[in-house]
Amino acid sequence: MTKTVLITGSTSGIGLGIAREFAKAGYQLALNGLETNGAEIANAVGAEFGVKTFFSNANLLQPDAIETFVREAVNALGPIDVLVNNAGMQFVSPVEDFPTAKWDAIIGLNLTAAFHTTRHVFKGMKARNWGRVINIASAHGLVASEFKSAYVAAKHGLVGFTKVLALEGAPHGVTANAICPGYVDTPLVRNQIADQAKTHQMSEEDVIAKVMLVKHAVKKFASVESLGALCVFLCSEHADLITGTALPVDGGWSAQ
Amino acid sequence: MTKTVLITGSTSGIGLGIAREFAKAGYQLALNGLETNGAEIANAVGAEFGVKTFFSNANLLQPDAIETFVREAVNALGPIDVLVNNAGMQFVSPVEDFPTAKWDAIIGLNLTAAFHTTRHVFKGMKARNWGRVINIASAHGLVASEFKSAYVAAKHGLVGFTKVLALEGAPHGVTANAICPGYVDTPLVRNQIADQAKTHQMSEEDVIAKVMLVKHAVKKFASVESLGALCVFLCSEHADLITGTALPVDGGWSAQ
Amino acid sequence: MTKTVLITGSTSGIGLGIAREFAKAGYQLALNGLETNGAEIANAVGAEFGVKTFFSNANLLQPDAIETFVREAVNALGPIDVLVNNAGMQFVSPVEDFPTAKWDAIIGLNLTAAFHTTRHVFKGMKARNWGRVINIASAHGLVASEFKSAYVAAKHGLVGFTKVLALEGAPHGVTANAICPGYVDTPLVRNQIADQAKTHQMSEEDVIAKVMLVKHAVKKFASVESLGALCVFLCSEHADLITGTALPVDGGWSAQ
Amino acid sequence: MTKTVLITGSTSGIGLGIAREFAKAGYQLALNGLETNGAEIANAVGAEFGVKTFFSNANLLQPDAIETFVREAVNALGPIDVLVNNAGMQFVSPVEDFPTAKWDAIIGLNLTAAFHTTRHVFKGMKARNWGRVINIASAHGLVASEFKSAYVAAKHGLVGFTKVLALEGAPHGVTANAICPGYVDTPLVRNQIADQAKTHQMSEEDVIAKVMLVKHAVKKFASVESLGALCVFLCSEHADLITGTALPVDGGWSAQ
Repeated sequence: MTKTVLITGSTSGIGLGIAREFAKAGYQLALNGLETNGAEIANAVGAEFGVKTFFSNANLLQPDAIETFVREAVNALGPIDVLVNNAGMQFVSPVEDFPTAKWDAIIGLNLTAAFHTTRHVFKGMKARNWGRVINIASAHGLVASEFKSAYVAAKHGLVGFTKVLALEGAPHGVTANAICPGYVDTPLVRNQIADQAKTHQMSEEDVIAKVMLVKHAVKKFASVESLGALCVFLCSEHADLITGTALPVDGGWSAQ
Repeated sequence: MTKTVLITGSTSGIGLGIAREFAKAGYQLALNGLETNGAEIANAVGAEFGVKTFFSNANLLQPDAIETFVREAVNALGPIDVLVNNAGMQFVSPVEDFPTAKWDAIIGLNLTAAFHTTRHVFKGMKARNWGRVINIASAHGLVASEFKSAYVAAKHGLVGFTKVLALEGAPHGVTANAICPGYVDTPLVRNQIADQAKTHQMSEEDVIAKVMLVKHAVKKFASVESLGALCVFLCSEHADLITGTALPVDGGWSAQ
Repeated sequence: MTKTVLITGSTSGIGLGIAREFAKAGYQLALNGLETNGAEIANAVGAEFGVKTFFSNANLLQPDAIETFVREAVNALGPIDVLVNNAGMQFVSPVEDFPTAKWDAIIGLNLTAAFHTTRHVFKGMKARNWGRVINIASAHGLVASEFKSAYVAAKHGLVGFTKVLALEGAPHGVTANAICPGYVDTPLVRNQIADQAKTHQMSEEDVIAKVMLVKHAVKKFASVESLGALCVFLCSEHADLITGTALPVDGGWSAQ
Repeated sequence: MTKTVLITGSTSGIGLGIAREFAKAGYQLALNGLETNGAEIANAVGAEFGVKTFFSNANLLQPDAIETFVREAVNALGPIDVLVNNAGMQFVSPVEDFPTAKWDAIIGLNLTAAFHTTRHVFKGMKARNWGRVINIASAHGLVASEFKSAYVAAKHGLVGFTKVLALEGAPHGVTANAICPGYVDTPLVRNQIADQAKTHQMSEEDVIAKVMLVKHAVKKFASVESLGALCVFLCSEHADLITGTALPVDGGWSAQ
């Protein structure tokens, strides 16, 4: 039977890459993002892979909007079998100057929004005796970098949240895992490389190896396709016993 | 020179135990709690150990109240040399029924309040080239238990936050560490033992070993004095290189 | 082009399960085990999936035997693209009575043998700019159980060894990962269940859930197929950035 | 009552620093090292702090020598209350060229020797219902560096071994912990700094901050006194619940 995946923050970057891998594998998609052309993006993916899609521009900082998003997605596509909590934001500042509104937004979007999406789908997953929650955390869910207090706190929190879901879902065929990417090849990052190369008068190759990927042992970005493929693998029968984990896709960052 | 420690949630339980060990070691104390007799408790500890104290009943869910607390403490006692983020609360529920107000309060008190206290003292610590931040996390900052989604998320988040502070403080003589207790002997817990013994018609010894401490390999509670002693140790010159750690005091819980 | 995988301890149990998944995916197999009918087992797998195989009954406690095994495997099948260090043994005893010969054998087989196989294939992997080392560790590579001092030490050691390989291989397209299973469904384990059910006069279901899988949150064994599928996934292009990790397949054991 | 500590590799560097802190705290010392003037070093420490000492030049690669060492130490000083497994060696090489004799020696000294010392003292600790095992691991017991395959494997193994001891000792008042230092200020390291400064034509300060301590966030070495102080703290009543841990003293290395 066709399965349905709901993915937050999925109209660009990592989320869209994950969505495309699920579509390729035949899943129906409930997509979400703040882009004004989000519906078009959703339609295009659906058309490309021949799967049904639903789109919501729900602002995930608003619990009510999340509730509406999930309800409408279920109405459109049926029960949510797989939840991918991917939406996130970042801000960089010394802790003593960190804007409190930014802290609240980062904790709200990267951590608390995942709680809200989960509480709306978890009961159904348990009742149907099958479900997958996949939280897109970060290498920063395992280790820290300076000036990223809110992000590292939120991502560690998301890893902890994942472990609890794993335990609560265990008797009911529901697994929960966190994926912890290092740096990922997205349009956003590609722009940063070009900018930094210009600013520092370095080649793009040097910006990548010596600036952006200094913490990777493998001097390559993770691809969005590879993250999507890992998500799809976690939804296979072969991953029934993989739960409560934090899976690094970080080129050896957290191993050193 | 006399050092000053600010401890949140310190008029009872773990926080009070930590405060007493710091007082014994000669530190001035900025105490905090919601007890109506908090000022008396602070005075009594100060009198017992002959150290200056300050008390605030600041509600740590209110950022403005935290700002006032820190400012007044500094006015009363001088700069804060050591910050102990101890205040916390717990709530237990399956994630699908977890009250959203409880989630927000637990994240707010156990995680975000530590951000607020820290941002008010960190600049001064860096400027004076010495400081200590000690976050009282939990074994639940490292591993999970079911039905504690908010608490585990907040405590993991606190561990992550600690690592960032360690990196930002490293060039400035400021360390940051998390202490991760298992179950701790507090008046609150003692009452729970008595209640459970009655409910389950078990001896208190059996309630302790088989119910409460089932995850401890050592079937004893941590004492509040031992947590205080570890905090004081972390403030010694011998702990200059201990930073960014999550130190379990959990009777082997997280080792198995 | 057809790839070749060398798997130690692969004529039964986990190793054979992994071998079969690789064969299904079209890999040539270099198999190893002490069974007297190992060659027949290798032939049967090769025939079933239509892939070339090689068998060696090398005793992995003998470095020279390992060298011969690898050399002959390369002669028979070509360079080794994927190395799976799976062979292992277990012994249970309080540390004060642990037979020293058992300690040496467990460290030798579960840890040092992986060093020997690796040093013979790593240079070639680096030279060809592609390679995979997969070490079958255990949840006991992350956490401990009493009376398993040698096994836990060896498996933790194997996880550490894996991280070093990841760093050394990173500039050369070679990844290294450890898989950390909980309890796995093998003929050996099935016999233990039947025995324990008889001894304790419990149902096999109760033996599984309450005795054997007490540390799993998911009360099921991992299947050898699922471990094999994860190995094959780690050899896909999608896993290029997954390196230096210790991947639990433990039903939530290490999350709590 | 006077307690006795046995420390391997304790006639220089970290081990000697730890021994001195224990002596300062009034412990009797069983010392060990390969220095020809080891007995004089032991006598000098004993005289300085007014404590009884015993010295053995046991080669810890020989199980029989370890047995004799422990037996003679007990004869001279009484039962061993605290065991500090400190002896270690290092070797650096790409894994494909790693000399197999070096691998065996590193595993033998850094890991297996700790098993042998422990098995001779653990039964007595359990019988007397009090004991401490402290294993001097390394940040390399938690994370890896390239070209240190044997060392990282051994130190991870030692951390795992520690966890097992913690569980086995838990019902008997015996704790076991690993200390995980980063780079430590020893005469050996001081010589390396001078050499590297000459070789690279850098100042000693630059060698320290940019070469040797590149992985530390705090650009200082750990002192041997600070490691000793942590050991002594772990032997206090305040550390009864600290067991099975791996305590970093690494200037933030493993937090990032």
